[in-house]
Amino acid sequence: MASKLGIIAGGGEFPGLVIAACRADGRPFHVLGLTGHADPKIIGDAPADWIRLGEAGTGFKLLKEAGVAEIVMIGPVRRPTLKELAPDWRTTKFFARVGLKALGDDGLLRAVAKEIESEGFTVVGIDSVLADCLAVAGPYGGLVPDDQAQSDILRAWEVAKGIGALDVGQAVVVQQGIVLGVEAVEGTDSLIRRCAELKREGPGGVLVKVRKPGQDRRLDLPTIGLATLREAAAAGLRGIVVQAGGALVLGREAIGAEADRLGLFVLGREDAC
Amino acid sequence: MASKLGIIAGGGEFPGLVIAACRADGRPFHVLGLTGHADPKIIGDAPADWIRLGEAGTGFKLLKEAGVAEIVMIGPVRRPTLKELAPDWRTTKFFARVGLKALGDDGLLRAVAKEIESEGFTVVGIDSVLADCLAVAGPYGGLVPDDQAQSDILRAWEVAKGIGALDVGQAVVVQQGIVLGVEAVEGTDSLIRRCAELKREGPGGVLVKVRKPGQDRRLDLPTIGLATLREAAAAGLRGIVVQAGGALVLGREAIGAEADRLGLFVLGREDAC
Repeated sequence: MASKLGIIAGGGEFPGLVIAACRADGRPFHVLGLTGHADPKIIGDAPADWIRLGEAGTGFKLLKEAGVAEIVMIGPVRRPTLKELAPDWRTTKFFARVGLKALGDDGLLRAVAKEIESEGFTVVGIDSVLADCLAVAGPYGGLVPDDQAQSDILRAWEVAKGIGALDVGQAVVVQQGIVLGVEAVEGTDSLIRRCAELKREGPGGVLVKVRKPGQDRRLDLPTIGLATLREAAAAGLRGIVVQAGGALVLGREAIGAEADRLGLFVLGREDAC
Repeated sequence: MASKLGIIAGGGEFPGLVIAACRADGRPFHVLGLTGHADPKIIGDAPADWIRLGEAGTGFKLLKEAGVAEIVMIGPVRRPTLKELAPDWRTTKFFARVGLKALGDDGLLRAVAKEIESEGFTVVGIDSVLADCLAVAGPYGGLVPDDQAQSDILRAWEVAKGIGALDVGQAVVVQQGIVLGVEAVEGTDSLIRRCAELKREGPGGVLVKVRKPGQDRRLDLPTIGLATLREAAAAGLRGIVVQAGGALVLGREAIGAEADRLGLFVLGREDAC
């Protein structure tokens, strides 16, 4: 029987999917909700404790008491300021080692994973729990990009990889060769809404989301769900492209059906490199 | 006596400054306003013709009739869609050579400058007309960045150079090591307003604007003016940094005085490379 799974839950719908998958498989689990990030409605009546981000000491104690062996970290966590963090002793010790500068850095997530493993836990990727959610290559619905869209995809891919390498963001919107927007800390939904206002006349825009070069597959992969498709359609975009094997797609069949209903293409694309 | 100057005018206040400088120096000039981009109030009663972006043939004819020798291109021009462009024969010939793809590319500006020179004009930089507007090294007002701001400046500089190399934008906002926003097609004012909403608690944020690597100094240099300072202050930013020799600063003394009044630092910084 699989070991007990610790679910460190950030925002969005994914923590709920992991809980549902554990229940369906009969796998024991325990949730550690991050206050102000995880949605209590999504966690529902699952066995759970709640901590602030700065309470690493309490968090490790609670996960050990719950008898957890493997840990999955799932759902976006807004980066805190030092004041919001209000670190406990264990958290302070951690930052004394990795440096406070790490607060603004994606290296932080890798350092957190390492820290969790130093406490005797094993950090696993979401795809080991939800086998079907890692993006596959090829179209999700019936639509595929035309030549203009293909050309926008290539440009957006290049820029997305570039801003990923700078550790800035994962998502880019391009229309007719023009970069309408680049994601930083605001998140993809907010990027899409902004690009709706910046769109030119004419066929409009593709969203590309890729994994940052060197990004640990277990941590914070780019994610799309039904809500992303609806935002993209509302903004007049033509389609969404994610990196095959480097992004999470929330419900393969549901995404394909919704893409067809909305008239969008949704595509998993292999990284050339 | 200096030759007659052709002023191809895009948006913002700069065309007005160039006109004022020509008048102050007694230099003859003729404005070619770009309809929908240049502000008729800024051009005022200066001798001017107006064309759409796609009317290159008419534009060359008008500039020759006006007896212009040197040309300065000044003020931002929003990139048009093909439909908005509605190119005349001369413009079509140009795009047949450089490729329509250039519409989404900064290479376009270089191609336009080359095209203008192929008609017998000389394209000059704004700094040859407004000697005092190229950013100098050092602080413009009395305030200078502290250690936290210095660290944010280094991070923003790195990202700004990176997105410049990708030909995406020129401006970045960083607070406490976190990239709040990256400029694409929306423009700097819009970037600053967005970052006001994304700012964390605590001391907040620097705006860095740099020249794109390889960018022709005569063309579309990053620009700050009094309005930029006011937007930055309203957004709670701590200061603005531009690249010494690679940005235009609209009125040195006025900028320094306004920076002091608003409690911002404004700094010209040398590129390390």
